[in-house]
Amino acid sequence: MKTRREGDMEIIELLKSRRTIRRFRQRRVSDAELRKIFDCVRFASCAANMQRLRYMAVRSPELVRALFDTTGWGAMVRPNRTPEWGRTAPLCFVAVTGPADAALALEADAGAAIQTLEYAAWSLGIGCCWIGSFDREHCRELLKLPKDRRVLYLVAVGYPAESPVAEDASGSVRYYLDDADVLHVPKLTADDLVSWM
Amino acid sequence: MKTRREGDMEIIELLKSRRTIRRFRQRRVSDAELRKIFDCVRFASCAANMQRLRYMAVRSPELVRALFDTTGWGAMVRPNRTPEWGRTAPLCFVAVTGPADAALALEADAGAAIQTLEYAAWSLGIGCCWIGSFDREHCRELLKLPKDRRVLYLVAVGYPAESPVAEDASGSVRYYLDDADVLHVPKLTADDLVSWM
Repeated sequence: MKTRREGDMEIIELLKSRRTIRRFRQRRVSDAELRKIFDCVRFASCAANMQRLRYMAVRSPELVRALFDTTGWGAMVRPNRTPEWGRTAPLCFVAVTGPADAALALEADAGAAIQTLEYAAWSLGIGCCWIGSFDREHCRELLKLPKDRRVLYLVAVGYPAESPVAEDASGSVRYYLDDADVLHVPKLTADDLVSWM
Repeated sequence: MKTRREGDMEIIELLKSRRTIRRFRQRRVSDAELRKIFDCVRFASCAANMQRLRYMAVRSPELVRALFDTTGWGAMVRPNRTPEWGRTAPLCFVAVTGPADAALALEADAGAAIQTLEYAAWSLGIGCCWIGSFDREHCRELLKLPKDRRVLYLVAVGYPAESPVAEDASGSVRYYLDDADVLHVPKLTADDLVSWM
C-alpha cells in the first residue's frame, strides 16, 4: 500500500495551518493552478460515490464583480475584513453547484469538497474564503443556471494578503482583530471537542 | 507567511490517493494517533467559526459492536464489503454529533470535519469509512446523548485491510469489485466537473 505514508508531519502541519483568507493580492491564480486544485477535488469523499456536485471557475472580471456584490464577509470583523474591489477583493470565485432537489447529504458532500479545495489551494500558496452568505437566487441567474440547479456555496480563491492566526480558545470562539490588524481565530482544543468511550 | 508551502506535490498526492476503507485489520489505533487526528479536525473549516460539532471516540468493544450492528456498508458491493465482526470490522468509530435543531450549514461543517479527519488519518496510515447509513435514533440512545443532540455521521477508523483504486470514470460512477476482489472507484475528471467562465 505504497500510497499511504506513515507519520507524515508535513501533512499534519498543513491541515493545522490552513486559515480562511479575506484579503487577496491582486495577482491572478493561473488556470494551471486551478486545474491542479480541481484534480484533487474530484477525489473528495462523497455519498455513495455519486459525484453530484459541479464547479464553475469564474475569472471574468465582470462576473467576479457581480458575484462579489452579492456576498457578505466575516460578520464579526466588519468592515475591516470586507474586501475592497480592486484592492483586496478576490479575482476568482469557485461556485459549487448541485441539483436543486438534492437531499441533505449533498451539503455534507459540499463541505468535504470545499475542504479538499482549500487544502489543495493552501499547498500551492493560495488562500480561500468559503462563503455561505450570498444571494443564492441572484447568483444562480448570474451564472445562467437552470431552475433545477442551485448554487450551494461560493469560494473566493486567491493569493493571501493577510496572515490570520489560530489560537486555543478560552471561553469565546468569536474571532477578532488585534491592534496590528491581525485576525485571531480561537479554536476549541481536542479536550473540549472529544469524549472517549 | 511561512506556514504555506509552494507547490507541495506530496500533499497533492495525499489528497488524491486517500480512499474509503471497508475492511480493517484487527489492530487498534492508539489513543495517541486518535489525538493527532482530532488535533487536525479542530482546525477544519466551519461556518462563522462556531465549532458546534462534537466527537465521540468509541473504542470499547461492546459499544463498537452495538454501533456496528446498526450500520449499512457499500450498497453497490454487498456482501463483499460488509465487514465481518472479529475479522474485518473496525475496532473504532468516531461519532460526529451536533445540536438536534441546527441548520443546514452544520451538515457542511460535518463534511469538512470528516474530510479533515480522513486526510489526517490517511497521513498516519489509517483508513476511514464515512457512514451515513445507520440507525441515528438507536445510536443516539447507545451513546447516551440527550434528545437535543443528534448523531450526524459515524466514521469507522482503522488500519486498512484492502487497497481500493480510483480510476477515471467513463460513463458510470458505480463502484465495483474486480475478479481479484479489488474495489474500483470511478471518478469523474476535472473536465467533467468544471465549467470555466
